[in-house]
Amino acid sequence: MKIQAFAAPGKGQPLEPFEYEPSPLAPHDIEVRISHCGICHSDLHLVNNDWGMSRYPLVPGHEIIGTITQVGSAVTRLAPGQRVGIGWQADSCGECEWCARGEENLCSRSAPTCVGRHGGFARSIRVNGHFAIPVPDGLGSENAAPLLCAGITVYSPLRAHNLGPQHRVGVIGIGGLGHLALQFARAFGCEVTAFSSSADKEAEARRLGAHHFAATRSPEALKRLAGSFDFILSTANADLPWLDYVSALRPYGTLCFVAAPPSNLSVPVFPLLSANKRIVGSTIGGTAALRELLEVAARHGVKAQTERFPLAQVNQAMARVARNEVRYRAVLEL
Amino acid sequence: MKIQAFAAPGKGQPLEPFEYEPSPLAPHDIEVRISHCGICHSDLHLVNNDWGMSRYPLVPGHEIIGTITQVGSAVTRLAPGQRVGIGWQADSCGECEWCARGEENLCSRSAPTCVGRHGGFARSIRVNGHFAIPVPDGLGSENAAPLLCAGITVYSPLRAHNLGPQHRVGVIGIGGLGHLALQFARAFGCEVTAFSSSADKEAEARRLGAHHFAATRSPEALKRLAGSFDFILSTANADLPWLDYVSALRPYGTLCFVAAPPSNLSVPVFPLLSANKRIVGSTIGGTAALRELLEVAARHGVKAQTERFPLAQVNQAMARVARNEVRYRAVLEL
Repeated sequence: MKIQAFAAPGKGQPLEPFEYEPSPLAPHDIEVRISHCGICHSDLHLVNNDWGMSRYPLVPGHEIIGTITQVGSAVTRLAPGQRVGIGWQADSCGECEWCARGEENLCSRSAPTCVGRHGGFARSIRVNGHFAIPVPDGLGSENAAPLLCAGITVYSPLRAHNLGPQHRVGVIGIGGLGHLALQFARAFGCEVTAFSSSADKEAEARRLGAHHFAATRSPEALKRLAGSFDFILSTANADLPWLDYVSALRPYGTLCFVAAPPSNLSVPVFPLLSANKRIVGSTIGGTAALRELLEVAARHGVKAQTERFPLAQVNQAMARVARNEVRYRAVLEL
Repeated sequence: MKIQAFAAPGKGQPLEPFEYEPSPLAPHDIEVRISHCGICHSDLHLVNNDWGMSRYPLVPGHEIIGTITQVGSAVTRLAPGQRVGIGWQADSCGECEWCARGEENLCSRSAPTCVGRHGGFARSIRVNGHFAIPVPDGLGSENAAPLLCAGITVYSPLRAHNLGPQHRVGVIGIGGLGHLALQFARAFGCEVTAFSSSADKEAEARRLGAHHFAATRSPEALKRLAGSFDFILSTANADLPWLDYVSALRPYGTLCFVAAPPSNLSVPVFPLLSANKRIVGSTIGGTAALRELLEVAARHGVKAQTERFPLAQVNQAMARVARNEVRYRAVLEL
């Protein structure tokens, strides 16, 4: 039976109804009837072929929640009727050191969910069951879908850097990623500061978990915080005064990028050297981290704040995402 | 009794004989009769006031080994006759979180040995006994002196990043710092690669502990090593193709600077982000690390390879250091 979806027929074009014949269900595959799919900025980049890897027609969507309808002959961990989530990644070699550790996102043969295969802006999807993560009962699907990409993007670095109640953490940018980072940093017990150029986000940032709010339109606000932070997570796709953020770190402090600013990072080395400071990048996470993330979110009440749209309004929804108007994550409901 | 020394009378001037009356021996002070003092590039920077903090007359020297001749009334850990080493740092607040951890180098009141006080190009020195580290019997003084600054500079990051036999480590620059880094990385059990623009250093690099040698005059040599290293330590005071070194890292790999290149570090963020890579700085170490370093050096036979000069030839020795002619560390013998 054909799968009903929405696809971009070519680079930068609006999505339109599209149907395709799924490939046969391989032994390790499952089929999932999709109930929700988040819209990520990466979906816009894919439609626009910003990364030069898109193939058309392109069905975006990689923050997928749904219910299993079929499992292949080799699938033992999952069963029809189970609710699962699928994120950015749909396949990997399964054999390298990273796959062995459940960090399949670092596998050199890592394959994205919507490049060369069709994603989650669709009624259903077939994927390798290894990349389908059971969703704990405590999580609502509409709040959990964005955890599969936005959530893991901010959860992984907090976890990898062993953050805890002894740490002071800053989050730059209160949007799709940042509003989840505030919640997770709070769940890790950190003292949390939100950095935002939108002073009107203060109340919401505090409600999401921030103890403090720094309105960064005023450069002095940042300079006053010199030597304050163990970890600053940048979720902003913008060129910011990075040296001021390095200065805001304490000794051994880390400035972590989960979004790439348009220009090169350019900083003098001496301020890193003199206080053992660190600049790092981080990207999504593998299946081990995804499982853990969903458990932590369920246990600690971490939820994506969403605006919901029917699939037929996908173009309007994507336009709102493109204009950064969504607070804080758009989700398609099917 | 006055202390006989060599001092720069003003910025950039040759050193000349100089004597000074030491301040009275405070309760926590000790006096040390100096037997050896290494010459570090930092001594040249201080003489030239490159960092804007020099005061003249300036007695350089912060890689000091000698024998205690007097201890203040409050000193219990040390006794006359004991051999000790003194490095870059001579004082700190003694009360902050970093001092409490033996990481006094990160104290905001950290005071260098030869800024506003006289250093080790001298017959003796008085310092806070807390910063005098007992030297294990197994170490020759002429080989141990450079460990107090060059040694700790490279030891600290290898230790802080928990390097071990599972790791592949690169060392950029085979000089005063690099020749010690090769030995320490080998002592940590790492698989070690030396990066050098001097192809004629290969045999020596291998003798010092390198398993592999990359002659970096050829840009292809570096590109061939993409994805190879867990940790690359840069000891070079030069602007190098940093993005190529970032590319040479494996996932989670770290590029660590212990010397500051003249220009800003400028790299795109995406390569850091896509494989969880890290760029960090590191500086010397506190008394806890210094003690450990000397024990490790004694146990594993890590030695600075030195050229020795009498104190009277200090200007000739410094000129050789300035021209990077010394292999690998100049030491004054008194």
